[in-house]
Amino acid sequence: MAKIICVLYDDPITGQPETYARDDLPHLERYPDGQTLPTPKAIDFQPGTLLGSVSGELGLRKYLESNGHQLVVTSSKDGADSVLERELHDAEIVISQPFWPAYMTAERMDKAPKLKMIVTAGIGSDHTDLQGAMDRGITVAEVTYCNSNSVAEHVVMSVLALVRNYLPSHQWVLNGGWNIADCVARSYDVEGMHVGTVAAGRIGLRVLRLLKPFDMHLHYMDRHRLPEAVEKELNLTYHETLESLAKACDVVTLNCPLHPETEHMINADSLKHFKRGAYLINTARGKLCDRDAIAAALKSGQLAGYAGDVWFPQPAPEDHPWRSMPHHGMTPHISGTSLSAQARYAAGTREILECYFDNRPIRDEYLIVQGGALAGVGAHSYSAGNATKGSEEAARFKK
Amino acid sequence: MAKIICVLYDDPITGQPETYARDDLPHLERYPDGQTLPTPKAIDFQPGTLLGSVSGELGLRKYLESNGHQLVVTSSKDGADSVLERELHDAEIVISQPFWPAYMTAERMDKAPKLKMIVTAGIGSDHTDLQGAMDRGITVAEVTYCNSNSVAEHVVMSVLALVRNYLPSHQWVLNGGWNIADCVARSYDVEGMHVGTVAAGRIGLRVLRLLKPFDMHLHYMDRHRLPEAVEKELNLTYHETLESLAKACDVVTLNCPLHPETEHMINADSLKHFKRGAYLINTARGKLCDRDAIAAALKSGQLAGYAGDVWFPQPAPEDHPWRSMPHHGMTPHISGTSLSAQARYAAGTREILECYFDNRPIRDEYLIVQGGALAGVGAHSYSAGNATKGSEEAARFKK
Repeated sequence: MAKIICVLYDDPITGQPETYARDDLPHLERYPDGQTLPTPKAIDFQPGTLLGSVSGELGLRKYLESNGHQLVVTSSKDGADSVLERELHDAEIVISQPFWPAYMTAERMDKAPKLKMIVTAGIGSDHTDLQGAMDRGITVAEVTYCNSNSVAEHVVMSVLALVRNYLPSHQWVLNGGWNIADCVARSYDVEGMHVGTVAAGRIGLRVLRLLKPFDMHLHYMDRHRLPEAVEKELNLTYHETLESLAKACDVVTLNCPLHPETEHMINADSLKHFKRGAYLINTARGKLCDRDAIAAALKSGQLAGYAGDVWFPQPAPEDHPWRSMPHHGMTPHISGTSLSAQARYAAGTREILECYFDNRPIRDEYLIVQGGALAGVGAHSYSAGNATKGSEEAARFKK
Repeated sequence: MAKIICVLYDDPITGQPETYARDDLPHLERYPDGQTLPTPKAIDFQPGTLLGSVSGELGLRKYLESNGHQLVVTSSKDGADSVLERELHDAEIVISQPFWPAYMTAERMDKAPKLKMIVTAGIGSDHTDLQGAMDRGITVAEVTYCNSNSVAEHVVMSVLALVRNYLPSHQWVLNGGWNIADCVARSYDVEGMHVGTVAAGRIGLRVLRLLKPFDMHLHYMDRHRLPEAVEKELNLTYHETLESLAKACDVVTLNCPLHPETEHMINADSLKHFKRGAYLINTARGKLCDRDAIAAALKSGQLAGYAGDVWFPQPAPEDHPWRSMPHHGMTPHISGTSLSAQARYAAGTREILECYFDNRPIRDEYLIVQGGALAGVGAHSYSAGNATKGSEEAARFKK
């Protein structure tokens, strides 16, 4: 019998909806690269409902309890008094989502001597100290591809919203005005602009494909060069450095994982290479950017807009400067947790747990750390190390 | 010597910006179908600045006055006391934009015995009584294609914003919260959904092309069937009726002109054919929809969201129900007046005026009415008649 802690975000303030906005989800055949969707033996939840919040329990309770395991579900995750810290001492598996991450620092691992696996119900395991997991033989897994397209949709939406000045224009409607000139004095078309992605993995490449028919000029940088056929098909310009990419682009979007080599890659120095009036979209991780440098660049006009949904820490304190800086289009961390995405990562988490308890191998594409080393996709996308420093700040968030 | 009245929207409340968000506009070669961009002999304005507001004067003053003409620029357009009505008696040309339309009713034409031409600096001449213009031999022209791609971008942005529940999620950031579940209980991916356009002209077809790589299923209806090659390329499903289209689609976007045959095509009856939880985007004309039926469908949940930027009348009164109905993502009428679009339609208006004064033919693609009949693109897209009824309501807007 194992104890599993599942850290999930709080339910809506009015509880789970009795009726959802829509009756079903579209049926998808497979991911664009041919990878199969999650393949658990069964699921015990209704796709299209809230699964990532406390009452949704990722649809795992029946499965785990009927197999004799203990499931602890909580949203209390930060600080020494949190349910997470209180329950860690005999936990075997900790599951959380990037939107409401259980920061798994080395200190916490030391409080959990039975810990065998940390699962991200979603993509991105930077809330776990990967070096710490390697040192302790803890497996780290995530549900690769489950919400990559969801995030790419959010990126395109954000590009359009910033460049076209959508949010302030909508506000004029609510205010009762008809201030066309106030709306459009900062409104442009994306057509003909140059857009570049930092990293062209599942999300970054999808973003480029989505923006191609807008007649934007497409750029990318990545530590792995894309196949020549893809570069040709999309007429891509490859850049070896961020400086080169930033100088060429009107819009830059960050789609790389966070690890020690990418932490704070956007800072006061690198922002100098951006065109005046560039737009920056970050749906990857908040810590890729220097918090105060972003706010300053928006105030000075060096950046014309900043959007995305990732912050550090999460939840972001009420006084986080990104909440109040000018010309931003941010949301809480939600792009990868649409109801559509939740159905996929709940199924993927179930698949990982079934493999773990049945002693079957977890898919290579889900593995980040195994047997004391980076493994699977982890070896391709991450570097060893720790990017959780400063996560104790999350305890400052007041509900 | 001719008198030209140019009705433009008001400047920003703080005046024209001294510095704009960006330093230049992207260079475009031509429109996607090969049509050339506007070709005036010269321009007297800076592209990328506000041209559609009163102080921008569409960049026309120097050209008109140096040729001995009189230019009256005003935002005062509604009611008997408006500058427009006071100046009409000896006007030869009236220019306005759809965003701030000079409603050219038959009554107003009768007050303007010298009126020879009505120009839309933009696209869409429904604010002019076309039958009235035909009866009086008045030419009606617009700047075809100048902002079609701008509007298509706004449509895609609106689809993503509604389906993904962007606006309420952004609001949670401003409110200081981290209410993930509240944000996403109405958030879906567009991937795999069915989207249909009512009319597949320059804008509608562009919207389909832009949405194709999102792996949406594409549908359309139109009184002209698209070439088989295009249907095949985009894997389009053609529908003969709105009922058929609505039953098949999760998202419907209106991209047809307003004329008596399309007025109020979306009403309580036709809304019954929509799937529960469908999204409707209207950047075409407000009068295509029955105002109260839309608000009721959002309240009942029959529609999950409504967005777009067109209203009737314009400006919309402060108590227009679309300002306060739930789940809307509307803006004032701005999608076609980005700074990028303004540069094109200011140049196009200049081109039309140069042709008129030089006695050269106006491009066929700009003509709606000429010589007492529908002409040029007007013969393809419009029907004879009048869609200006009710426009006197615009005078109720309080600045």
